Formats: sequence, C-alpha cells, structure tokens
Amino acid sequence: MQYDSSNIFAKMIRGEFSAHKVAETDTALVIMDAFPQTRGHVLVIPKAPARNLLDADPAVLSAMMPLIQRVANAVKQVTNADGIRLAQFSEAAAGQSVFHLHFHIMPVYDDVPLGAHSNQKADDAELADLAKKIAAILT
Amino acid sequence: MQYDSSNIFAKMIRGEFSAHKVAETDTALVIMDAFPQTRGHVLVIPKAPARNLLDADPAVLSAMMPLIQRVANAVKQVTNADGIRLAQFSEAAAGQSVFHLHFHIMPVYDDVPLGAHSNQKADDAELADLAKKIAAILT
Repeated sequence: MQYDSSNIFAKMIRGEFSAHKVAETDTALVIMDAFPQTRGHVLVIPKAPARNLLDADPAVLSAMMPLIQRVANAVKQVTNADGIRLAQFSEAAAGQSVFHLHFHIMPVYDDVPLGAHSNQKADDAELADLAKKIAAILT
Repeated sequence: MQYDSSNIFAKMIRGEFSAHKVAETDTALVIMDAFPQTRGHVLVIPKAPARNLLDADPAVLSAMMPLIQRVANAVKQVTNADGIRLAQFSEAAAGQSVFHLHFHIMPVYDDVPLGAHSNQKADDAELADLAKKIAAILT
C-alpha cells in the first residue's frame, strides 16, 4: 500500500501539528501518545516516510533501535513501571490507525490491565510533565 | 536483573531443546511459537545473551531489524494475514515469560481476535508446515 503524507505524524514532523514532544533528532520524533493505553505511553516515529514495518527502509529500522532502547529505559525510570511493552502495528487489522511507521513504548504496571488504544485523550498537563521528565533523562 | 542461561530459548540456541525452526543465522534463531496467539506466530531470537530490550546490546537490536522485517513479510505472505503485530515484552509485568530477548511477529486476521498467549500448544504438524513455507520465502 502507498504512503500518504497527509497523516498526522507526518504533519507533526513538518511542524504543522503540535505534539507533546519528548525528543527530536535529525531522523526521529519522540512524543507522548495523546491517547495512551497506559500512563507514560510514548511513540518513537522515524522521520523517513514509510507506512509501517513492512515497507520501511531496513536501515531506518536498524537506526531506530538504540533510540527505542534509550527511550524505553527512560520511560521505565520516570514512571517506575514494572515492565515495558514495545509494539509496532502494521495495517488496520493489526491495530494501526496512523499510517506512518511508529513504535509504541508502553509501561506496564503490576495489577493494572493495559487499556484499549485511543479510548480517551490524556490530560495535557500530565503529558507535558511526563515528556519533560523523560526528556531530562534522555539528554 | 541478571541474565540466566538456563532459559528455554538459550537451550534451543545451544541445540539442547528442539524447536520448529524457520531459519537460523550466526546471530539469530527464528522459530514458530509453540503456544501461538495466532496462526503463524513466529519468534525472532537473537543468539547474544540478553534478558530483554532494556539490557540488550544496542548493536544486536539494530542487527535484528532487517531480519525481523523479512520474516514479517514472509509470514504475511504465507498466512495471507491482514496485518502484522511486532511485539517485545520486557519483564513479567509486560507479559515476558522467557527471559531471553525475543521479538514476536504475530499475523492478525480480520474478524479474528488475538488470543491470549500460551493458552494452548499448537499442533506440531501445522507448525512444521508453516515453518517450512515461511523458510521457503525467506531463502
């Protein structure tokens, strides 16, 4: 399937849409998920255009992993989570809702079931606070 | 937390425990999940010792991605799935049950809900057949 650059993550990368930014590099944007499945749900979004895992440039995928690992450890530290789920969904059947490649980093807490995605928009002040704390560890 | 080499994936890597092998390289083992959440559930297991995403060598993580992508596309082709979920669980709270780094590649089918993990052992003949078909595309 074709990549369509009108998606919301492409707009965030171009600065046309605001986001709770955790970090930005030449090749990636790291933001708080505005509809988190869990407190501290972060997205790592490569800037290179790709629909998902299936069509991405393998070099871009490889380049993301050290950043994903650093973000995962920072999220765990800030949220004091008991575990971390890394997930990437390719195509709607798999749960993909924005068709620009992105990786979910989801802290998991003992005794708190993981919520369904996109149920409820998170509080902006809380997202801003988390973004700041995670960014402080990353830098 | 410490890596413990007595886990079942380390045993498979050392050849001490059998598996429905899809592919093996110098650095990774690709097998059918014996307790699949979905038909065609495959695991990509780096051979280098690591507990999970949080403690792995970043270079090992990067090196896995092109293989993970190739396996994901091969699995989608063989199973005719509508989507693919890539997942990696770090620590028990996140759903990790074997403490050697591994990535789940899970085909998703329209109108078939994803099962819970480790519910039921799959049929060996079916796993062997899927492994063979996926391997044929990979090579």
